[in-house]
Amino acid sequence: MSAKRWVLAARPDGLPKPSDFRAEMLDLPPLKDGEALIRISHASVDPGMRGRLTGDSYAPALGLGETVESAGIGEVVTSRTAKLPEGALVTGGFGWTTHAISDGRGVQMLDPSVFGGRVRPTAAIGVMGVPGLTAYFGLSDLGQPKGGETLLVSSAAGPVGATALQIGRLLGLKTIGIAGGGAKRNYVLDEIRADACIDYKAQSDLAEAIRREAPDGVDIFFDNVGGEQLDAAILNMKPGGRIVISGQVSEYNAAVPRGIRWVTPFITKRLRMAGLVVYDYRKRFPEAQARIAAWINDGSLSYREDIIEGFEALPAAFIGLFNHENLGRRLVKF
Amino acid sequence: MSAKRWVLAARPDGLPKPSDFRAEMLDLPPLKDGEALIRISHASVDPGMRGRLTGDSYAPALGLGETVESAGIGEVVTSRTAKLPEGALVTGGFGWTTHAISDGRGVQMLDPSVFGGRVRPTAAIGVMGVPGLTAYFGLSDLGQPKGGETLLVSSAAGPVGATALQIGRLLGLKTIGIAGGGAKRNYVLDEIRADACIDYKAQSDLAEAIRREAPDGVDIFFDNVGGEQLDAAILNMKPGGRIVISGQVSEYNAAVPRGIRWVTPFITKRLRMAGLVVYDYRKRFPEAQARIAAWINDGSLSYREDIIEGFEALPAAFIGLFNHENLGRRLVKF
Repeated sequence: MSAKRWVLAARPDGLPKPSDFRAEMLDLPPLKDGEALIRISHASVDPGMRGRLTGDSYAPALGLGETVESAGIGEVVTSRTAKLPEGALVTGGFGWTTHAISDGRGVQMLDPSVFGGRVRPTAAIGVMGVPGLTAYFGLSDLGQPKGGETLLVSSAAGPVGATALQIGRLLGLKTIGIAGGGAKRNYVLDEIRADACIDYKAQSDLAEAIRREAPDGVDIFFDNVGGEQLDAAILNMKPGGRIVISGQVSEYNAAVPRGIRWVTPFITKRLRMAGLVVYDYRKRFPEAQARIAAWINDGSLSYREDIIEGFEALPAAFIGLFNHENLGRRLVKF
Repeated sequence: MSAKRWVLAARPDGLPKPSDFRAEMLDLPPLKDGEALIRISHASVDPGMRGRLTGDSYAPALGLGETVESAGIGEVVTSRTAKLPEGALVTGGFGWTTHAISDGRGVQMLDPSVFGGRVRPTAAIGVMGVPGLTAYFGLSDLGQPKGGETLLVSSAAGPVGATALQIGRLLGLKTIGIAGGGAKRNYVLDEIRADACIDYKAQSDLAEAIRREAPDGVDIFFDNVGGEQLDAAILNMKPGGRIVISGQVSEYNAAVPRGIRWVTPFITKRLRMAGLVVYDYRKRFPEAQARIAAWINDGSLSYREDIIEGFEALPAAFIGLFNHENLGRRLVKF
């Protein structure tokens, strides 16, 4: 039995290239007692993973020759453990590989009473997984929202941003998205039901565009992008405003990122800025997943997946994130 | 009776110039019932006031032709109100003027049981006033210090930084200052009794110099400077670290400030950054002043004043702040 996997072939310099990754076959050893063989069906591609390709980030750098990390879902095909019965759908951090052998650690079975109907199994690595939970805890814990406040979200058509906007709406906030291009803007308005959405590509002055949509200022900026978009938001924050640093996709490929120019308003407007790594909230994941599932099932929270076909497509699907190709959660199916 | 005052003559473009200020004589009206005439003896010069010379900041912009704002101390010379008895020493936001007429609003009498001995009257606009209170509330409220943590402070020989370092020491923190030049470094080590002090002018790589002094990282960065010093600190923060934005003196004269490059560590290291305007803590000023006075009186907290002589020196004394001339709290005596 062998698995196909993608490993890190070279540390990317700037935007990752296809040649930074290499496909390999890996012979899998026979199953031991207590183990199961999982056939992976979907793997995620995540902009936040970019940092670990170059150096130490929230976790140590990925080694050259190691399997590229990602979340995935799969099915148990052979089992020698009662923890992972054959036929079970499971999720875990399998990486970019077609098969994995697991003793059950770090692998969760998908509860059929949750993952069915509107909550598709792929949601386990999307709106019910890291992106959705980042939106949930970033907004609720660091954003400290109060009903009636104004929430601005960058990368509003992405999986984190779209979920943050909708949770904001469900908590009674006025919601404004920032997205690139007419199709994404329409999605944010029509399907995500934000109160407003700014197409940053159509603006010569993003700060001024935000001012038009939020003339009284922004209470919470939920940022997935960084750089110029973060600066434009800072100039529009209300006194006491909170900035949640969820992602900085415009910055990950830069050796020295652009950063922000406007720190002085942190004094004059008493701003707060904080970042999060969602794994810190692990104990509260069940609470958040139950709420998200209930919102999905009653039709108040929608999610979209951008599913690319074919194991060979993994590097290109990842690289395309930095070209803003995706609308919704990008997964690769194989 | 007339007063001499300095008014804003032109909005500074970059570093303020002497010609941005104009000295004027102002005829004072006769005292009415309920008023007192105060002769000002000392006025402060404050880097944080720079923002209001150009545009709206934490308070609306200063108007052209208006008296430059500052804190001051003085003596009541003539009084028609029991609130301000003749001979009393008082403090208030008098601005750069030799005399002021007051009905008592915004003016406090200096309590002789507090302001005597080691706590000199001038401390009312220094370590017991805005700079000292900014250090106290910035460190205690936004810094959230826990005994044994490592505190890094920029502009460590300035009135805010030197007080923050000492309060940090008194709260059981390991204290590291950043200051420019050997004289300031010696002051921070010998008189402020910080555990270490980095002369940034003697470093080619400030981030590396911080790493040598704090190999395990910095828990709290109390920043009065901004720009490159803030970036160097961010690269050395521990996970969960707090950054207190007290001042950004390297940024105030720039039309578009330098800002910071490193926002991505806010995610990977779960950093928090927050700014303060000390007036938000007004109700707690007495509590803080009592603690600061007690520390001064028992010899555990020292403060230094850099007193320039002569009313005419006010603009130059202010401009000199941005050339890092001052060691300790700069006041002008007249």
